[in-house]
Amino acid sequence: MDLKELGEFGLIERIKEALGGPMPDGVLGIGDDCAVLPQAGGMETLVSTDMLLEGTHFLRGDIPARLLGWKSAAVNFSDIAAMGGRPVGSFLSLGLPAGLDSDWMDAFLAGYKECSQYCGAPLLGGDTTTSQDGIAINVTVVGQCQSGRSRQRSFAVPGDLICVTGPLGDSAAGLQVILQGARGSEAAEALVQRHYRPVPRICEGQALAATPGVHAMMDISDGVASDLRHILKASDVGAVVRTEKLPLSAGMRQVCARQGWDATTLALTGGEDYELLFTMAPGTEPPVEYYAIGTVTEEKNLVWEGSSQDFIGFRHF
Amino acid sequence: MDLKELGEFGLIERIKEALGGPMPDGVLGIGDDCAVLPQAGGMETLVSTDMLLEGTHFLRGDIPARLLGWKSAAVNFSDIAAMGGRPVGSFLSLGLPAGLDSDWMDAFLAGYKECSQYCGAPLLGGDTTTSQDGIAINVTVVGQCQSGRSRQRSFAVPGDLICVTGPLGDSAAGLQVILQGARGSEAAEALVQRHYRPVPRICEGQALAATPGVHAMMDISDGVASDLRHILKASDVGAVVRTEKLPLSAGMRQVCARQGWDATTLALTGGEDYELLFTMAPGTEPPVEYYAIGTVTEEKNLVWEGSSQDFIGFRHF
Repeated sequence: MDLKELGEFGLIERIKEALGGPMPDGVLGIGDDCAVLPQAGGMETLVSTDMLLEGTHFLRGDIPARLLGWKSAAVNFSDIAAMGGRPVGSFLSLGLPAGLDSDWMDAFLAGYKECSQYCGAPLLGGDTTTSQDGIAINVTVVGQCQSGRSRQRSFAVPGDLICVTGPLGDSAAGLQVILQGARGSEAAEALVQRHYRPVPRICEGQALAATPGVHAMMDISDGVASDLRHILKASDVGAVVRTEKLPLSAGMRQVCARQGWDATTLALTGGEDYELLFTMAPGTEPPVEYYAIGTVTEEKNLVWEGSSQDFIGFRHF
Repeated sequence: MDLKELGEFGLIERIKEALGGPMPDGVLGIGDDCAVLPQAGGMETLVSTDMLLEGTHFLRGDIPARLLGWKSAAVNFSDIAAMGGRPVGSFLSLGLPAGLDSDWMDAFLAGYKECSQYCGAPLLGGDTTTSQDGIAINVTVVGQCQSGRSRQRSFAVPGDLICVTGPLGDSAAGLQVILQGARGSEAAEALVQRHYRPVPRICEGQALAATPGVHAMMDISDGVASDLRHILKASDVGAVVRTEKLPLSAGMRQVCARQGWDATTLALTGGEDYELLFTMAPGTEPPVEYYAIGTVTEEKNLVWEGSSQDFIGFRHF
């Protein structure tokens, strides 16, 4: 069978079946934003890893090397934020074509460093090798949090509000601006920036994990339509999302109106916003900006209130 | 400038310059087999990462998928062994061409699992993505050891014996057997097996780290000629290696004699043996098999006693 038929989540299931097994005490393995490993002194180690390949995740001529460096680090640190952890450091593997100019690498490293400094987590190691094809990047991040404080996908309970930490769809609209050659206006360029330079919500994640009423949490990488389904599945619950409550930035509305794009679809299915998606008991007052977009339900289906459409998130395969 | 002119170690220096900086207390960053991160309760976390790319590290038609799965895990767990640590778990990123058959992946995962079970460390997470080019594999391993017990490259002192845990050059001879089409004999097939299925010296590494007289340690991935230089540089010392003391397996001698290959050159420069290379005070009796091949000296040069040649290890770029 061809891998394409399996799909990304089918592939992950296959890997879990092949390699899964009983986890040691206190260890959380495959299936959340990070793995969680207990330490001896009341702390937990968080680890996550992501691979970015030329041609699949980026085109060398499209994204400036410095922004790619930032983004490679950012999308990983976002997974630490999604658990409510503090970043500790990162590991960078680079597969580089032999003829690549060292200026490209210097710019990439400068962007990687900016994000590492923003997250307070130095580079701790890595690997460099020659690639016969395109550029291959793999980042592994390590973080930590107090034992029992990490927020997992399985923690949602019926009655919870479903919330996000910031506007949705900016990154997806920015990608469309690039792909459809709609660049130039101030609003369009701001969206492109949001696509190339996502900001991991490190402080928000830690603040939310320190707030008792906050339950499930993850970061939005594939779009709410896809990511929320992970929370629902892991927590064995359903949800009603009120599509008119989705936070959309003024610039994103403006560019969508001008281009004739459906803002709701971009907001729900575009992905790469790297805002945090979380659930919390009604009445909880977390010390961060947030937008409530729906409610967790006992009934195990996903209802898009205010839209006749169904929404599916980004698929990797 | 072209990356090729920089060379692998020039590239790593460049990355250290760009991204290095003061490390947090107790953290060992870039430059050893693993990074070392202090935990709260008298333990340390060890982390290492390695990227394997099709066309650079393996040819899909050459190495059976199951053995590639084993090897991908093994070369990483070997880095935990090289610090004297206990493996805890691993993270696997896979970039797979869309048309790849799922049988290939199932066999790869079976081999990866065998090695993970051998090392007592389950898969804890990872990433899967489509590759537009060849297969891309990145493994990150996590281990732990008691605080202050990890053995680093900088710990060698003049007067130390230089030792290895097993025969050298088997893997390099096995690679030559494959490349030069010299397969068939029992001895040749055993060497091929040593090339495809290196065994990480997990128990040896932990036993050596528990032995007070053992100082510097690393694993042999690029060949003693290259790897020993890392220990000498990090420890600011020199060495005399007695080439007639190099442990060579009977099968390797036999195949080299038949094919007219220089066994000493293969043993010193071939790499991928994944035996441990360590230094220890004379009189130390570690509870593992070992072969003393030379002595650490105050004079900062590297002398190959018994040979008129100089030996350089494998270069990645």
